[in-house]
Amino acid sequence: MKGIVLDLDSKSKISYQEVPSKSLETDQVRIQIKAAALNHRDEWCRQGKYPNLTIGVILGSDGSGVIIELGSDVKGFQIGQEVIINPAMNWGENQEAQSKDFLIMGTPHDGTLSEEVVVASDRVHAKPNHLNFEEAAALPLAGLTAYRAIMYQAKTQATEKVLISGFGGGVAQFAAQFALGLGAEVYITTSSPAKLEKAISLGAKGGFDYRDSQWVDNANAEVGGFDVIIDGASGDGLNDLIKVAKPGGRIVIYGATQGNPSTLEARRIFWNQIKIMGSTMGSDQDFDDMLTFVQNYQIKPIVDAIFPFAKAEEAFDKMRDGKQMGKIVLVP
Amino acid sequence: MKGIVLDLDSKSKISYQEVPSKSLETDQVRIQIKAAALNHRDEWCRQGKYPNLTIGVILGSDGSGVIIELGSDVKGFQIGQEVIINPAMNWGENQEAQSKDFLIMGTPHDGTLSEEVVVASDRVHAKPNHLNFEEAAALPLAGLTAYRAIMYQAKTQATEKVLISGFGGGVAQFAAQFALGLGAEVYITTSSPAKLEKAISLGAKGGFDYRDSQWVDNANAEVGGFDVIIDGASGDGLNDLIKVAKPGGRIVIYGATQGNPSTLEARRIFWNQIKIMGSTMGSDQDFDDMLTFVQNYQIKPIVDAIFPFAKAEEAFDKMRDGKQMGKIVLVP
Repeated sequence: MKGIVLDLDSKSKISYQEVPSKSLETDQVRIQIKAAALNHRDEWCRQGKYPNLTIGVILGSDGSGVIIELGSDVKGFQIGQEVIINPAMNWGENQEAQSKDFLIMGTPHDGTLSEEVVVASDRVHAKPNHLNFEEAAALPLAGLTAYRAIMYQAKTQATEKVLISGFGGGVAQFAAQFALGLGAEVYITTSSPAKLEKAISLGAKGGFDYRDSQWVDNANAEVGGFDVIIDGASGDGLNDLIKVAKPGGRIVIYGATQGNPSTLEARRIFWNQIKIMGSTMGSDQDFDDMLTFVQNYQIKPIVDAIFPFAKAEEAFDKMRDGKQMGKIVLVP
Repeated sequence: MKGIVLDLDSKSKISYQEVPSKSLETDQVRIQIKAAALNHRDEWCRQGKYPNLTIGVILGSDGSGVIIELGSDVKGFQIGQEVIINPAMNWGENQEAQSKDFLIMGTPHDGTLSEEVVVASDRVHAKPNHLNFEEAAALPLAGLTAYRAIMYQAKTQATEKVLISGFGGGVAQFAAQFALGLGAEVYITTSSPAKLEKAISLGAKGGFDYRDSQWVDNANAEVGGFDVIIDGASGDGLNDLIKVAKPGGRIVIYGATQGNPSTLEARRIFWNQIKIMGSTMGSDQDFDDMLTFVQNYQIKPIVDAIFPFAKAEEAFDKMRDGKQMGKIVLVP
């Protein structure tokens, strides 16, 4: 079978090549991949920026497909069943944070960008009926991260005003979709008029261009403060987010694409009783809850483009350039 | 009657002088002050560092005493009753944060450092029986702030490990006492061996000198991370606190005596799912809950020294120098 592996010595840093087929342990299932999706994590691996990189590892955390073989101890699944994979492994029992053994499929262990994947059956879930394989493959990592941020951490309520920064990234889009599903009043930040238009078409009430030096004042005048803010950028923009949070507001950060902030307005945080809450991926419980929510609210992931595995370099380049509006999906 | 007023033109910046007696509104009570206590806030007012300063305002947020006159609409109190005052006014209905009308007694409105105080009856509570007037006067502002930080915000559990930074300040001491009351395992940071000894005599398990460049490593090796951290300093020490927080840990900041941190380790916050929670004073509900807790656990505020009103300058100087171990109390 073939897979997309990390190949840091090559020009493209990845290679679509023959990889060995794995034998099945008794608690595992073999899935024929129908679609896989990219995350920033995959591109960071390609750029050599992730810890514990292994040359030859099959990349990819997101995948959907069909079960084609069952380990002898596996119960509750059948050959031919359409499934998606939870890429978060060994979270552990503590709902507040992952254990030290926590791993994400795709690095350092093999991931989903191959014709077949062998995984423990407890990572496998029935594909939501309302999603095709490409949409289902777009869901796991970003959907889980967004769900935990907006539901488990922020405990967002239907009556609240929510700001999602950096709309365009997968987690930000899911966060917006989930908040809209709840019935919350959703705003976004983006520098792209096309992305703002897309957000409004989904139901967002408005948006702000974070490059505009007046955006904080404008947002406060227009909205009167946000109860919940979901941010994957950190950096100096975090102090702007603190300024647009309502007293008692919750700011969930799930990433730091803009690095560390160069200061933090401590007085504003304690006087306005702001919470800054770190969040990463999600527990098995979060994944279950996310699937239930996606089914109940018939949420459909936004797919930007679908590439064949053979054009993986093009797909990764698109992720690197950050121009996508939705998830980038690859199919064998 | 006499009171201690802000007098920024004088050398000591305060003056113990004759002040006019106030008439009573129908919902107010007149209290003969038996003891009042200082907070950093009073010293900051003296240093001209607080907003909305009024020359001639009676300083002081904390007080205990005896009711000597009741407004005609006041119910549930009687002449001669021993009481303490909740200095937090107009918090509002939102438990998550104070309203825009929120005020603290002592600036810009008259406070407790006078022979008599006139306050709305809803600010008045029966003095806990197990406390004398000096101990009771030490409780309100710092106790309320500590209670909200450790109980309402952090929701500290008996099974948890708690770090209180800057033991020596009133809020830090109450936070340690409340956490110990709960049954939590309490550690402190301090640069003073005498303060560490005091903390251990109260039941703390240990402490760390934050000036020691190894304290973070030592704390992690010895304790294995803290579930809850209560901090009034902020500044660059905040990143040390993030390093000694357990994954999923909560850091409550109620002040910024060390100013803003010059960076924030965003990746550590989101990967370890740390929460930084701002907290200020407390709601009326927090005050009620705090009094119940103090009575149930028979908690006694630590009083460092008692000065007569006439020696207010000496008391304020002691607060400024930060050498006290417990609350500084003034009596008429």
